[in-house]
Amino acid sequence: MNLTIQKPYLLFIGDVTEGESAKMADGIARWTPENVVGKLSLEGGKVNLDLPELSLKEAVELGAKTLVIGVVNSGGFIPEHWTKTFLQALEAGLDIASGMHKKLEDLPDVAETAQKYGRKLWNVRHPNYYPPIGTGEKRTGKRLLTVGTDCSVGKMFTALAINKALKNKGIKSDFRATGQTGILIEGSGVPIDAVIADFISGGAEMVAPENEPDHWDIIEGQGSLFHPSFAGVTIGLIHGSQPDALVLCHKPTRKWMRGVSEGSYQLPDLQVCMDLNLEVARRTNPNAKFVGLSINTSEMETTEAKNYLKDLEEKYGLPTVDPLQDGVEKIVNKLV
Amino acid sequence: MNLTIQKPYLLFIGDVTEGESAKMADGIARWTPENVVGKLSLEGGKVNLDLPELSLKEAVELGAKTLVIGVVNSGGFIPEHWTKTFLQALEAGLDIASGMHKKLEDLPDVAETAQKYGRKLWNVRHPNYYPPIGTGEKRTGKRLLTVGTDCSVGKMFTALAINKALKNKGIKSDFRATGQTGILIEGSGVPIDAVIADFISGGAEMVAPENEPDHWDIIEGQGSLFHPSFAGVTIGLIHGSQPDALVLCHKPTRKWMRGVSEGSYQLPDLQVCMDLNLEVARRTNPNAKFVGLSINTSEMETTEAKNYLKDLEEKYGLPTVDPLQDGVEKIVNKLV
Repeated sequence: MNLTIQKPYLLFIGDVTEGESAKMADGIARWTPENVVGKLSLEGGKVNLDLPELSLKEAVELGAKTLVIGVVNSGGFIPEHWTKTFLQALEAGLDIASGMHKKLEDLPDVAETAQKYGRKLWNVRHPNYYPPIGTGEKRTGKRLLTVGTDCSVGKMFTALAINKALKNKGIKSDFRATGQTGILIEGSGVPIDAVIADFISGGAEMVAPENEPDHWDIIEGQGSLFHPSFAGVTIGLIHGSQPDALVLCHKPTRKWMRGVSEGSYQLPDLQVCMDLNLEVARRTNPNAKFVGLSINTSEMETTEAKNYLKDLEEKYGLPTVDPLQDGVEKIVNKLV
Repeated sequence: MNLTIQKPYLLFIGDVTEGESAKMADGIARWTPENVVGKLSLEGGKVNLDLPELSLKEAVELGAKTLVIGVVNSGGFIPEHWTKTFLQALEAGLDIASGMHKKLEDLPDVAETAQKYGRKLWNVRHPNYYPPIGTGEKRTGKRLLTVGTDCSVGKMFTALAINKALKNKGIKSDFRATGQTGILIEGSGVPIDAVIADFISGGAEMVAPENEPDHWDIIEGQGSLFHPSFAGVTIGLIHGSQPDALVLCHKPTRKWMRGVSEGSYQLPDLQVCMDLNLEVARRTNPNAKFVGLSINTSEMETTEAKNYLKDLEEKYGLPTVDPLQDGVEKIVNKLV
């Protein structure tokens, strides 16, 4: 999927209040700050991002080319009351990029206004092709996949950090995006949760194709095998990735799975989670193994976090880091 | 998904030669013979179905209303050289129904000719809605799901047989179709391998909704957790079905997984397969358990088959049948 979305972006936050719903905006701002002029919130929107709040006019004056919908919601729908801002953005001179399931063209006013002003509408979650059916055939090159106990526990962040650390060491590697934020950051990828169910593993094979024997694909994981809504995406991604290396991502302060009723599904035990991921991964790559744990300790106190990581490292015998605090050097050293 | 496909059908076999590729035609002919006038093959087509070979003209004279593409292929594409027959069928007075991924409307000649003659084109594999995201929430009613060691091992057949046996006993039950053949047989269902990846478990929740506490949904399984192409469909279907009861389907004379290179993926061991299916199923229904094994012994000799079934029954302590030979009474008795 080749994108030619015009940069820089103005990140649209809507009226979202929870930090994790804005992970798309956060990811883009963190990994490619040079591509972002600021953010635009609606009344009630409160998201803690270190970005200036801009009007459409200010953003255009600062050179913004595209309004990027920087928030996600379960189901990927576009609330109706956002439309007014989209129409104003198109009129002000911006294209719009969306990572929602709902297509921008399916909002009649938006489609019409975009056409009137000659603006582009991007739906990065909609592949404009069928991936092939997964073949399960072995490909050369090395692959690492991040997996998780839940959604939104740092799988994209960890993959981006590992890719960066490998490149810094002069090792051939590429970040392989499988979600809307990753695709906007990287400029390419396969929106794996948006392909037809029969083609999930084929999409994963497509995003991380055959490569040189010493080249690493660092593949952004999705969902969790334990998530009652999204496990299909996860297992297909694991099978198609044929990972040599797995990194488990987890947020210890989260008790209940995200996106389903609070209190209905606990996060799995780490050992149980690793066992199931390994069993699945070894179906297409018998040599798959875990090479590290990536823990989001953002809601823990420093000492508590340090002790927790140390305990995990001893318990599982794997390099254990909070990538935001410690970087991912330890994991990368284990990898190479 | 409410269908109003006109019956009876003429089953189109194309130039397929392998019996299992015609499982759609076979399933319709076997379960609803009253809806079928005959079959139409192309040159080279050789499929052992107990149906008269008819020309389009003969079929129309016998009252046929719809040409049903009765074969499946990996990927669900429509070979170009079939188009000519489709055009003749439309001209002769037939609608066309397809279970392929490729839409009939995407064949320009077919779309144009259908419009010219006012015929209908049905794509039963294409839901014309988004299912909701799976919630994982407990629903009343009882559910049985057939699972398998591979594709095409009898999951639909077994579910249809169990539903029929339950109804014969006066027990409230419905067959819940999740594939194109099942949908054509039942007249409703959700084409679960054709929904967007994020909505697989939501589709499964939709196909087997809340029901009376003593009502059984007998849900047609898809794929296999061990299939490198299709496991995503399978796990989402298991999670969304929340099965109280599982039946394992298997074909012992099949050594290699279907749809991938011969010799690359062996069928899993039955115990390993049941363990993984149970682990996954218990995520959304902690009371899930296996209630039987359904074995396709069609390529075994009678004595060999009988001994094999007996051995399995002893080994796993579960009612074990070849549904085509023995019926499914034994399993249904365990269920009620």
